[in-house]
Order: sequence, then C-alpha cells, then structure tokens
Amino acid sequence: MSYTPSTESLIKALQILPGIGVRSAQRLALHLLERAPDDAKSLNHALSDALSKVKKCPSCRTLTESPLCEICTDEARDSTVLCVVISDADKEGLELSGHFNGRYFVLHGVLSPIDGIGPEQLGIWQLVDKLTAADNSVTEVLLALDDQMESDATAYFINEQLKKLKIECARVRFSQFKSGTLDKADSRIIADAFANKQSLGFEHD
Amino acid sequence: MSYTPSTESLIKALQILPGIGVRSAQRLALHLLERAPDDAKSLNHALSDALSKVKKCPSCRTLTESPLCEICTDEARDSTVLCVVISDADKEGLELSGHFNGRYFVLHGVLSPIDGIGPEQLGIWQLVDKLTAADNSVTEVLLALDDQMESDATAYFINEQLKKLKIECARVRFSQFKSGTLDKADSRIIADAFANKQSLGFEHD
Repeated sequence: MSYTPSTESLIKALQILPGIGVRSAQRLALHLLERAPDDAKSLNHALSDALSKVKKCPSCRTLTESPLCEICTDEARDSTVLCVVISDADKEGLELSGHFNGRYFVLHGVLSPIDGIGPEQLGIWQLVDKLTAADNSVTEVLLALDDQMESDATAYFINEQLKKLKIECARVRFSQFKSGTLDKADSRIIADAFANKQSLGFEHD
Repeated sequence: MSYTPSTESLIKALQILPGIGVRSAQRLALHLLERAPDDAKSLNHALSDALSKVKKCPSCRTLTESPLCEICTDEARDSTVLCVVISDADKEGLELSGHFNGRYFVLHGVLSPIDGIGPEQLGIWQLVDKLTAADNSVTEVLLALDDQMESDATAYFINEQLKKLKIECARVRFSQFKSGTLDKADSRIIADAFANKQSLGFEHD
C-alpha cells in the first residue's frame, strides 16, 4: 500500500518548493486532496494564470505582465542610475522606502555553480549588453546585494564586467537584511545605505 | 508599486497551505516565477492531475483513483473490524506496520465547529449509514484517533452514535503520535496499541 500514483506525483512535485521536504510535501498534498479540494483548485488556477501571464521584463528582468515593466516605461525615473538586486522582493522593499528613483535590474538569484546558476542564468550578459548598447544612458550601477558569501561573489563578478565598460559601480549594503527581507528594513536604513554606498571604483584613465 | 496582479493572486492562493503565511507565500511565489518556472509547470500539472483523478472511496473515504479503494475491494481483509482514522497518512502508518487486517474509514479531519467542520464534513453520517446498511458486516469499530482535544471530542461523538447502533467500539491509542505521524511509530508500538485497545462499551441488553 502507498498513496495513489497521482498523489505520489503531487508529493514529489511539491518538493520543488524551497524548504519543503518529503514529509511536509506529504502533509501539504494530503491537506489539499483531503480537506481543501476547492482551495486546491483555486491554487491550481492561480498558478496556471501566473505562469502564463507573468514574464520577465526584457529590459530589466522584473516580473511583469506588460511588454515592458512599469518602472522601465516610467519617464519620471532617473535613467542614469541602475540598481542591481537579487530578487523582485528586494526591488519591492526599495520601492516601498521611496529612496531610490533610478531603474533596476533583477538577477533572480546569485551565482551558484553547484546549482548550475552562472552569469547566463542571472542575465549578467544581458546586463552587459544593455550597458554597451548604443542607446545606453546608465552612468552608475549600484549593486544592492546582501552580505551572503554567494552575493559577494556575484557582486565581485558583476563589478569585474563593469570595470571593462568603465561604468561607475558601487555597493549598497543593507547589513542584517538578507535578500527577500528588505521590505522589513525601515526607510531610514535604506536611505543610509544609499547615502553610504561604497564605490568599487575602476581605474579612471 | 507592488507585485503583478497574477503574482498577488498566486501569493494569496498559496496561503491556503497549512503553515504558509503571507511572507512564506511571497517567497514561494517568487521562487516559482523567478527561478523555477519549469518546476512550477510540473507542480501545476501534478496538482491538476491529482485533482481530477483522486477521489474519496465511496465506501471508506480513503483517497483512491479507482471506483472503490484497494482495501475495500480486497476480499482477504477482515470485513468485521473497521478502523476509523483521521487521515490517509495514519492509514498508511497502520498499513506499514502490518498489524491490522480489517478495513478503514477515513475522517479527513476532526470535529472543529469554529472551522465549519462538523459530522457531515467528516463523513460521520456516512459511517452511520454504512453500519446500519442491510449488508453491514462490521461488528467492531476501532477509533484510532490521536490524543488531541479535538480528536477526543470526535471519538466521543462517534462513540455516542455507535452506542445507538449497539456496535462494539474501542479506542486505540498511540501515545506521543499525533495524526499524520503514525508512519514514524515503530511496528511494536502499533501492535501494543491494538492489543491494549480500550473498550468504550455500550450497555449490552
């Protein structure tokens, strides 16, 4: 005896969620099928809907349902400063604070060779192309990544690419805030971090 | 600014999962859309598949993909003893132990008026109908519910109904094992619990 084949498949599929192991997945699958089939249908519909509608903005990789995201189309934003963040959640945190009026570039992760996440998966070559395009207006890139080891390595790698382009690059540090928790940082902490950005400098000619 | 409408809907839908609050739901939604869209499609497919194929057995409410579940169709099982469990996970735990050869009835929950879960939602009237049917062969019902307060109340309620039917009813207690964790109980504990079942007795005529 064991669970039905479709139940077992669902238990396996739920384990793709971060932090969900086999026992949690069993618990979630049985909850959905035993007690909450209507909720499960809503979840299925919401997931299907989001998967078909939500895309990455071709210019900045923010999740969007429009051909170009709201910030990239907003003429009032400063197009000379580009803030690189790990996740849409971080961008949301910065937007909530109201202390940044430039544009963003969202990596959706950090370099992690062991997980097969390299510069290509993070859009770093796309970032380089964007900054070398004929119509590029960005003169400063702010790396608003957290202090985790992989984030530091990612910031270092991006800075190495930007040095070649001779674009000013600075690190904006929000100590104590891991990626995804920036919306918990109060507005003053975010303002301070931008004010105290650390230039990663390139050799000016 | 905030997440896109479909992303917000997904965040809301994920909160139906037990133990998932708004922040966890945000993290899961962004993980699915940002980093794992292929996994998200697999999850969507698995959920859709399970929702369309998995039903409750009309006789015992076990989750099944057949018209009648495997145990209900197995002629080798003892049809005179019926073990009532809270969840399919508990039934799985008992099956793994190999110490019970009767049939099951799965409540898929416990009485919880505040959540709108009454006897109807747990199939208790269905259980009563089954035990009063002309072809009923069950002479003993074992209530293998855990020791939580709501489970005790549920056992009491079921026993009250069974007293009227004059069917032997006993409580099987797996101390220290909450519903859903019975597959962690070793086989001896389960054997002991069945051997030490506590009769809830009815007034014999």
